[in-house]
Amino acid sequence: MRPTLLALLLASAIVAPASAAAPDTAAKPKSMQELLDASQAADWRTLDPANTLYLELDAGRVVIELAPAFAPEHVANIRTLAHEGYWNGLSINRSQDNFVVQWGDPAEEGQPRRSLGTAKEHLPAEFERKATGLAFHLLPDSDGWAPQVGFADGFPAARDPASGEAWLAHCYGTVGAGRDVAADSSNGTELYVVDGQSPRQLDRNITVVGRVVDGMELLSTLPRGSGPLGFYEQASQRVPIRAIRLAADVPAPERTPIKVLRTDTPLFDAVVESRRNRRDEWYKRPAGHVDLCNVPIPTRKPPTQASPAKPQG
Amino acid sequence: MRPTLLALLLASAIVAPASAAAPDTAAKPKSMQELLDASQAADWRTLDPANTLYLELDAGRVVIELAPAFAPEHVANIRTLAHEGYWNGLSINRSQDNFVVQWGDPAEEGQPRRSLGTAKEHLPAEFERKATGLAFHLLPDSDGWAPQVGFADGFPAARDPASGEAWLAHCYGTVGAGRDVAADSSNGTELYVVDGQSPRQLDRNITVVGRVVDGMELLSTLPRGSGPLGFYEQASQRVPIRAIRLAADVPAPERTPIKVLRTDTPLFDAVVESRRNRRDEWYKRPAGHVDLCNVPIPTRKPPTQASPAKPQG
Repeated sequence: MRPTLLALLLASAIVAPASAAAPDTAAKPKSMQELLDASQAADWRTLDPANTLYLELDAGRVVIELAPAFAPEHVANIRTLAHEGYWNGLSINRSQDNFVVQWGDPAEEGQPRRSLGTAKEHLPAEFERKATGLAFHLLPDSDGWAPQVGFADGFPAARDPASGEAWLAHCYGTVGAGRDVAADSSNGTELYVVDGQSPRQLDRNITVVGRVVDGMELLSTLPRGSGPLGFYEQASQRVPIRAIRLAADVPAPERTPIKVLRTDTPLFDAVVESRRNRRDEWYKRPAGHVDLCNVPIPTRKPPTQASPAKPQG
Repeated sequence: MRPTLLALLLASAIVAPASAAAPDTAAKPKSMQELLDASQAADWRTLDPANTLYLELDAGRVVIELAPAFAPEHVANIRTLAHEGYWNGLSINRSQDNFVVQWGDPAEEGQPRRSLGTAKEHLPAEFERKATGLAFHLLPDSDGWAPQVGFADGFPAARDPASGEAWLAHCYGTVGAGRDVAADSSNGTELYVVDGQSPRQLDRNITVVGRVVDGMELLSTLPRGSGPLGFYEQASQRVPIRAIRLAADVPAPERTPIKVLRTDTPLFDAVVESRRNRRDEWYKRPAGHVDLCNVPIPTRKPPTQASPAKPQG
């Protein structure tokens, strides 16, 4: 099935198919797709199984990369929780439009709660870290929320040269550790994923623990909860979690063989520029700017899985 | 059903329930909810039925406010198309994660296309307009994509004092007229709605015709299409459109009695400030900034519909 040209309106807003490449490519800046097609193996990285979570739903697998460089205590606890099967059989309990989905123990007040096993009940807040020692790949574009933004360890991040601190930014796909009013009330059992306009006001107010790398659509399409804050009002509406597993605990053949574009390379800079100034014939006015959370971090799977490089939006 | 405190993590990220208001409210800035609770009738406006579209899906109604001040030719054409039932029985043909849903005539190349009736086949591009004569309510916050941003006629908008032009911004819920490569190739038959991170790079590259005011979750939760650009690959996957009607063509008792917060009032400024600097006890560090597309435009329906004022995100 091929939609007509008219139905393909907006098509070039995303990625020009290779077949549509203009013949004078020598003179024109490359599109993102052309850049990815010309990428080398070294432009891509493989996820560390010790820092990768698989959220297994009936609908499929969501792949999350953890960020130990920013939230070492939370990531260690999450590894323990996953290793011990803490979330298996629990559920996604909240889906609020243009904001987040959230999962954890849905137990009501007074009901018994699931044991944390050997994981810690209390952790320190990990809202930011010292920028020293962090390879921060600066984005030249301005940002309203932070003095500097860029990428660190493959994650969208921000930095304040005055305070010497760095932190992860809340973009589409960011995973954080829900907390109560106390800053140090999160322990990683309750996790949320951003699936709307980047809620950057959460930056430095909550511990970010990682980012969804694959399978976002399994979360973003969940029915919105009709209760306050998007909580499901009926237990039957909750979305069952089959398991959350650390990739390191999963036999290698069952792991998702995904690769993520490195964000500290000249190729990535070219990808960012291809988004900052769209040069294909569809765009009449290149923006000359890109927001941190509008920069896609492309992923790819081996051709055997029939999933070509997949830029987002 | 009440989730426990632990499950309510992130709760105050949205709106503090009235019961949680601190006792010293006299000294504290009001939360958005408190501001809305204290609003007057004059802070709200009713949608003009001549500028309101109802997209009727099996799952319910999506309410769209049209923007004739920015796209008069497109809005006039869309009124004609709706009045003559152009979209009735057509479908939503595309849903791309973190970007847009899009509807129109799914006819393949070579297949007959639906008649446009008395609507125009060709329209001029309406990417921007003269700022002169436009009541522009300026947001003091910086923006990476435009010299100035704010609200005009209730829509998120941008302005360039140097060129004297103003345009509508692509935020969550923005509705635009899909086009082909030629700037003037849209006629309003093919419409898209943003349901991800604000794709501001589209600003001034396509004609924006309005904004979803109610029912966004009916679009944002649609299954993503597995074809290129999120098109549904099978005709059976397309989402049927029962009808798109102009509210003026709908009997008054069947109209959605929604009110929208005015964006040119001191109350709205206070709402924006409540989002720029969150002062409830959950937030530890007010951002001191808000992006145009992070400003919610609250709506409300009469209490008989059991829908209290509903801020987004």
